[in-house]
Amino acid sequence: MTGMRDESAERAREHVGTVRCIALGPEIVFGDVDGNLERIVAALRAVRSDEPQLVVATELATSGYVFTGRAEAERLAMASDDARWRDVVDALGARTVAVIGFCERADGGLFNSALVATAAGIAAVYRKSHLWADEKKVFESGQSAGLVVETPIGRVGVAICYDNEFPEVPRHLALAGADILALPVNWPLVDRPTGERAPELIQAMAAARSSRLPTVVADRTGSERGVVWTGGTAIIDGDGWIVAGADGAPDASAAVAITPGVKALGDLNDLFADRRADLYG
Amino acid sequence: MTGMRDESAERAREHVGTVRCIALGPEIVFGDVDGNLERIVAALRAVRSDEPQLVVATELATSGYVFTGRAEAERLAMASDDARWRDVVDALGARTVAVIGFCERADGGLFNSALVATAAGIAAVYRKSHLWADEKKVFESGQSAGLVVETPIGRVGVAICYDNEFPEVPRHLALAGADILALPVNWPLVDRPTGERAPELIQAMAAARSSRLPTVVADRTGSERGVVWTGGTAIIDGDGWIVAGADGAPDASAAVAITPGVKALGDLNDLFADRRADLYG
Repeated sequence: MTGMRDESAERAREHVGTVRCIALGPEIVFGDVDGNLERIVAALRAVRSDEPQLVVATELATSGYVFTGRAEAERLAMASDDARWRDVVDALGARTVAVIGFCERADGGLFNSALVATAAGIAAVYRKSHLWADEKKVFESGQSAGLVVETPIGRVGVAICYDNEFPEVPRHLALAGADILALPVNWPLVDRPTGERAPELIQAMAAARSSRLPTVVADRTGSERGVVWTGGTAIIDGDGWIVAGADGAPDASAAVAITPGVKALGDLNDLFADRRADLYG
Repeated sequence: MTGMRDESAERAREHVGTVRCIALGPEIVFGDVDGNLERIVAALRAVRSDEPQLVVATELATSGYVFTGRAEAERLAMASDDARWRDVVDALGARTVAVIGFCERADGGLFNSALVATAAGIAAVYRKSHLWADEKKVFESGQSAGLVVETPIGRVGVAICYDNEFPEVPRHLALAGADILALPVNWPLVDRPTGERAPELIQAMAAARSSRLPTVVADRTGSERGVVWTGGTAIIDGDGWIVAGADGAPDASAAVAITPGVKALGDLNDLFADRRADLYG
């Protein structure tokens, strides 16, 4: 048996903070880095606010996704200290955290990365460590399984797309203290039974619930070079329920409660304390 | 990006075995151990077949779930070598594996257990290691995170209810070689948004997909001592989709493909080989 979560939800809300979660859906034009940046900045300005915000753009939002190969990706890559990020930083409210997927050129090579920015500047860069399909021919692998970044709105976990299909990743981030997860993705439409959600979204819902880790999924819509996107953009709360999005729209917004460190389920259970880590091999 | 699983599904099917998966829904009457056993045996006989079968009954199917306390559970407990299991064994076809939740009395105390039986006899007993709520006042905790049992139909993973809400558990079982998961549960109805499935079922779907681990969920229907059950009985395939059940009926049956050890996703990805275990902390 399991269940009876109402009580614990009640208790969790005593400790609550609320973050406005926004998944951005600006048009991404393959190869048009300056134009994509302009549209991202415009979208950031459009949602600018002084309230606590987590704003997430998609995976590889600066470049597009469907590269012909590494050479093309190299041409479209940006460094994390590129001067153009200044416009992104300047677009952010005092308590806004932005997470934006980009094609990164670095000393170590090319990475499928996510920039974490606040009004104070670039806070961190996460490099995707679980590469999907042809990404293996284009990018180096990152050397962390997601990232947890201390920010003005709390500890923001960051992972990118396929990373999150490894249940170890959101769990690892939650155990490392993430209060909320930013998840830039590019989910191509895959076969699924009529009426079902994208399978990756089901996995994100489950991961959110398992660790009480609200999750902001920013996905693409439309298509690029023949790849049709799922349009799985969604805001998932800490109980694993979709509170906005998942309707095919390019963007989504919802206020989400975060409950730092509160993992209790009623009086006798706890999502973390009940783990039997010694038994997981 | 992620997706494009059709190819890999194609490849997986080359290695396929098919198991008839059956979740049993006999009436469980609290405290009526002999009657419950009779009804379980009758249900096993009703589905008896020579084909490969995995037949799963619910958590604590012999005793019922909602104990007033440990003393009552002690009175309703059975040993794993109780002579009454003979009728269960005798009801099984040559290639049937049955997994039945029961209240176990053992040298080490009382356990919320699952018996794994074949026509050859009792193959194994799994003792739940993640105890929910008042179970902590009634039962000792088991000392393994699920169990993998070699059987005539393949390696059957066994976990019980709340165990499976720890993403580590189904992952651990799959990595340990489980081809399919038997999951006896007693899911009480909890609040959920209109139109959503039981959250525990979403977690089971996600876990199945993450590890290509088909899962047979046997849940209760109706109510017991004021606890209303979810009726979440369902058969989930290795892609994480529900292929039977999840309709509130007390039982479900479907043929499910198992693909021992085949975790590839297309040519470049693999659910297991792509893990970055060194990064999970």
